[in-house]
Amino acid sequence: MQNGMSKLHLALVHYPVKNKDGDTIAAAITNLDLHDIARAARTYGVGAFYVVTPLSDQQELAKKIVGHWQQGAGAEYNPDRREALELIRIKASLNDAMTDTAALTGAPVRIVATSAAADGNRLSFPEFRRMLERSDQSYLLVFGTAWGLAEAFIDNSDYVLAPIRGTTGYNHLPVRSAAAIILDRISGEH
Amino acid sequence: MQNGMSKLHLALVHYPVKNKDGDTIAAAITNLDLHDIARAARTYGVGAFYVVTPLSDQQELAKKIVGHWQQGAGAEYNPDRREALELIRIKASLNDAMTDTAALTGAPVRIVATSAAADGNRLSFPEFRRMLERSDQSYLLVFGTAWGLAEAFIDNSDYVLAPIRGTTGYNHLPVRSAAAIILDRISGEH
Repeated sequence: MQNGMSKLHLALVHYPVKNKDGDTIAAAITNLDLHDIARAARTYGVGAFYVVTPLSDQQELAKKIVGHWQQGAGAEYNPDRREALELIRIKASLNDAMTDTAALTGAPVRIVATSAAADGNRLSFPEFRRMLERSDQSYLLVFGTAWGLAEAFIDNSDYVLAPIRGTTGYNHLPVRSAAAIILDRISGEH
Repeated sequence: MQNGMSKLHLALVHYPVKNKDGDTIAAAITNLDLHDIARAARTYGVGAFYVVTPLSDQQELAKKIVGHWQQGAGAEYNPDRREALELIRIKASLNDAMTDTAALTGAPVRIVATSAAADGNRLSFPEFRRMLERSDQSYLLVFGTAWGLAEAFIDNSDYVLAPIRGTTGYNHLPVRSAAAIILDRISGEH
């Protein structure tokens, strides 16, 4: 494995996340989050992309989105899309995603949370790249939907990745864009 | 101006672009293209973000999307979104966008096209960053929707930016994600 990216797995978490007021909620699935992050994951050679929601109707919705492009007309019309969405695994909890990653890789799994806030001890992008290259562990990089992962979740993760700082102090990238930038930085391809 | 990013302007072009079969078409506006690219533009301190379409009904749609978040309930509910969408200027053609950029900046405008193809003479990200820091010109970085900018358009631009290469040969990022990654690379913030 040339660059360690296959030891990296993504999770897009819909619970527990914050709403605008900081309360913990379960967010709804956004169609384009799944498409865009799956494509970025496929571009950078990520192992698996977990879509995590405890709500069974939302799990069904995610299955429908993925299934449309994996079978029948969608798959035939756009095979590139199918190839990206094949990375998606729908899980009820992050624990289920971790269990699945451990079973897939046969390696211990570490949780790396993402946050737009810069406070506390943060894992830099070059450090994370070196860990992926050298370690025999698997890493599950976790993104929160809505206004981001709940604080208690972040506090319990093994690492918290450094935030993306633009050049202006404006700090409101959609999770789709943040995931793409973060994978590009970790891969060190630029 | 500390880093030259304010000399950079974006254009999201809906005509002339390619469809799946390589024919030149006018693509439809995608709501989240406007939101996501506006947020990335705001994050990295870009000057203006032009949404270019010759179709008047599509111009109306773009105005409606922007207007919803600039006035009334939307603006109040989510001021961060308003702040990003304020960068959007809707134009019928790239020529109109260039004229506007020239009027805004009082400087000559150079066109930098983007393409997922790697053939030909490409402007690297560090080169482009240096140009932005040192030059007294303005640069309009142009993204194509659908299957990308028409070849004739690319051939007539002043520069073509290097494509994003992931680590796998898979080369199908959505324009929203490509724009975010490209701004991050040009800014050199990572």
